[in-house]
Amino acid sequence: MRKNILYAQSGGPTAVINASAGGVISEAQKLGIGRVFAGINGIEGILNENLRDVTQLSQEDVRLLQHTPGAAFGSCRYKLAEFDKAPDVYRKISEIFQKYDIGCFFYNGGNDSMDTCCKIARYFAETNTPCQVIGIPKTIDNDLAETDHCPGFGSAAKYIATAIHEIALDTASYPKGKVTVVEIMGRDAGWLAASSIVANHCGAGPDLIYLPEKPFDIDAFAEDVKKVYGKKHRCLVAVAEGIKDEQGNYLTVYQGKDTFNHVQMGGTAYRVAKLLEERGFKTRAVELNLPQRCAAHLMSRTDRNEAIKSGKEAVRQFTKGATNCMIAIKRTYVNGKYRAKYFAVPLENVANAVKHVPSRYILPHGQISSDLLPYILPLMEGTVPQRYSNGIPHYFKSDITD
Amino acid sequence: MRKNILYAQSGGPTAVINASAGGVISEAQKLGIGRVFAGINGIEGILNENLRDVTQLSQEDVRLLQHTPGAAFGSCRYKLAEFDKAPDVYRKISEIFQKYDIGCFFYNGGNDSMDTCCKIARYFAETNTPCQVIGIPKTIDNDLAETDHCPGFGSAAKYIATAIHEIALDTASYPKGKVTVVEIMGRDAGWLAASSIVANHCGAGPDLIYLPEKPFDIDAFAEDVKKVYGKKHRCLVAVAEGIKDEQGNYLTVYQGKDTFNHVQMGGTAYRVAKLLEERGFKTRAVELNLPQRCAAHLMSRTDRNEAIKSGKEAVRQFTKGATNCMIAIKRTYVNGKYRAKYFAVPLENVANAVKHVPSRYILPHGQISSDLLPYILPLMEGTVPQRYSNGIPHYFKSDITD
Repeated sequence: MRKNILYAQSGGPTAVINASAGGVISEAQKLGIGRVFAGINGIEGILNENLRDVTQLSQEDVRLLQHTPGAAFGSCRYKLAEFDKAPDVYRKISEIFQKYDIGCFFYNGGNDSMDTCCKIARYFAETNTPCQVIGIPKTIDNDLAETDHCPGFGSAAKYIATAIHEIALDTASYPKGKVTVVEIMGRDAGWLAASSIVANHCGAGPDLIYLPEKPFDIDAFAEDVKKVYGKKHRCLVAVAEGIKDEQGNYLTVYQGKDTFNHVQMGGTAYRVAKLLEERGFKTRAVELNLPQRCAAHLMSRTDRNEAIKSGKEAVRQFTKGATNCMIAIKRTYVNGKYRAKYFAVPLENVANAVKHVPSRYILPHGQISSDLLPYILPLMEGTVPQRYSNGIPHYFKSDITD
Repeated sequence: MRKNILYAQSGGPTAVINASAGGVISEAQKLGIGRVFAGINGIEGILNENLRDVTQLSQEDVRLLQHTPGAAFGSCRYKLAEFDKAPDVYRKISEIFQKYDIGCFFYNGGNDSMDTCCKIARYFAETNTPCQVIGIPKTIDNDLAETDHCPGFGSAAKYIATAIHEIALDTASYPKGKVTVVEIMGRDAGWLAASSIVANHCGAGPDLIYLPEKPFDIDAFAEDVKKVYGKKHRCLVAVAEGIKDEQGNYLTVYQGKDTFNHVQMGGTAYRVAKLLEERGFKTRAVELNLPQRCAAHLMSRTDRNEAIKSGKEAVRQFTKGATNCMIAIKRTYVNGKYRAKYFAVPLENVANAVKHVPSRYILPHGQISSDLLPYILPLMEGTVPQRYSNGIPHYFKSDITD
């Protein structure tokens, strides 16, 4: 049996993706599994044999890694073609895995990365390659199927709810305020935009919230804004970046495409604000932007811990012989207290699937049902104390940062 | 002698403006000064006799207030005309102050607000009105004259340096990255953009930084970007929102004007990114936006404490009979340790003046001298533990938030 394992990161980083890396490394150290390699820049670096031996990473470095945003081992947006389109790529992967005696490949990413995992696992099965493949979930978007929620979401939701609560207090300052349009990440699924209701629950948040799951009707929206403004002399609007009009066109201005042929978002708040200006409103556009996925100074303790445990569970599933699977989280309540359990789900069920916000939570007139709160709140619970140096958090520095 | 005092807030909020409010209220309570009124929405609300008696604000509420972003008593952007243009307004102010037996007016704001203070103080002197006028400094921009620095700056700098450090780690994730252009507040003075060098000092920050103090040459800039990109395969750029071209035109897209005839900023990062796209670069624009002035979850303890002490000092200056002055901060070092001292400066020296980043700190090719670090670092020092509820910070709720 092959002795070593290979861990790599893929897709957009989150505040806690490195916590999962730490979980994999520390569990492998604890169980005395052979050598632990990190693939630099995901499958793209692995194909260039860009591997680092992290077996001996110190406890202090693992601890620091688990507090650090970004993808410490580098990420990629590499689209793995089907076997018949690129047989050489699959053979190259096999060769490198054999050379480094890799018994399990852990890929930490979202649904595109799970598609890559799935293809590699299928190829290994067909070629009787003695290497397991296990996906570790990661996405702020919370849109992976088969799991109650995804590591990365809780911290992003905590940042978003906090930022929009602070913005609500700030924009309440003027007697005659503007319509402030805040853009929140989420191309297909509105979990992050929906999580801004936590700020309302705390006394000051968005008056109106719009998700990609329901068509965005600009005239109905302008009516909703008018009503709020008439009452409060200001209006705070949260829009998911991926909202679409009745014809299914994104409202965003900039519409480049990435390697997965996904539309690249950005500029939705500016576009929505402009539509309101044309209707006579004074506006301000705010994009919460990258801090949503990298504000590790405000990470959720629950989310961070679950990211670590997902990594650890992946290593345990390897020792049990699991393959072609992703670690998923099941929510339970013990004496009314939230608990997470970890299990493995088939990669086929996850790859390329998208879990949307159920329509029962999306009410008319830009309202989100508070019934969603019991789902979101436990995932945002707790803070992670950071060590500060020179007034800012002290983070792990990997060589990719140079 | 008149017994009561009146405190009001003006201009854009900061993370710590309410800390100064708390300082005024608690010091007045301690010294047993008559009644303490808060003017709602600054001079605009005062003219409508919109005053709240906050004499009895509980210790717990004062504590909470001192942790809360926004302008808890409401702000305004009211431009007070010269006396000969609006004598009725001045007489109205006098009447209301007499009615409420106001012996001192404390106005918490930036250089425009100090202009308002100055005009009122001059009118009171000329009319022998027995009411003192004392300004309390507040601005994230750090551009007030006569004071070493301004309450509000340290917290904004802490947020900006943290966010850009996290963005630097995040954007280092891909093997072939983009040029990320981060827009930082600062219309005339580049103190906030300059403070992003703290992230560099901590190992990951902007490669290039541009301030409003020096003309922005797009071709030279593109050359600088090209050099960095050639070496690192990515480039992180920090631009102040107020950068101007050689002809003195703002680079920003949107150029409305506010009541003070200042150009309203925003969109500078998008504009700069677009100029780079036209030159063949792949870019991402990020505006740090409102969180820069309201991210109280990350306030600097030094800044928060100095904001409180500025408020307290203002009350003490009142008891000493001072008027037509603003509280200023002098920096001293005791056994090498940073200390702040408080004193009063004439309002005439502050009103409408702007303190720029000295040109010796602004180096060619988008570089900022690390000699600026000893000035910035002490102001960002320390964190303020927030109480969390429902996963987000618990803040003071005033009736203006309704």
